Amino acid sequence: LELLKKQYKRQNADRVISDLYSAMDKIRCHERDVAINKLKAKHTIGEMECEVLNDLTHAVAYKILAEPTKVLRRAAEQDDEEYLTTVKELFRLNGGK
Amino acid sequence: LELLKKQYKRQNADRVISDLYSAMDKIRCHERDVAINKLKAKHTIGEMECEVLNDLTHAVAYKILAEPTKVLRRAAEQDDEEYLTTVKELFRLNGGK
Repeated sequence: LELLKKQYKRQNADRVISDLYSAMDKIRCHERDVAINKLKAKHTIGEMECEVLNDLTHAVAYKILAEPTKVLRRAAEQDDEEYLTTVKELFRLNGGK
Repeated sequence: LELLKKQYKRQNADRVISDLYSAMDKIRCHERDVAINKLKAKHTIGEMECEVLNDLTHAVAYKILAEPTKVLRRAAEQDDEEYLTTVKELFRLNGGK
């Protein structure tokens, strides 16, 4: 039973983290496409250029969320559910439903 | 005295928020410059292109932090210091020192 509880809590943390990343991916992909369209007015934008812009938005977003993700995972391991609740509230993640 | 307390708390929140944004700005400016250098290998990168990439990283970072910022400001107004502490821990902001 103890093991099941632990597993459940880890899954809970995983869900919050995955909601966080999917909210953030929506933002970064939208902004990436806006920027690509702006550059297309003056340049030939091929695969290489799209990749640079994709990598750029990916790096910015993932690096900003790197610390919170680590802290969340550690908190979940240590049974600290406060963090999960606060992160859900901070980023307005509605329980992943 | 009540007014002073309120002001102090608001300043506290402002400091956490400004630490958060300066940590995030460092990330986005670094990644922006990496991307600009990659594009320079194939393109003439002038003011317009730098602006597009700057706006892109700015938009991604600020939109990710928009909700947390709002929640923090509201929490500070409502005397909820828990949030400030959690955000400092989540993003490893060491008290802005």
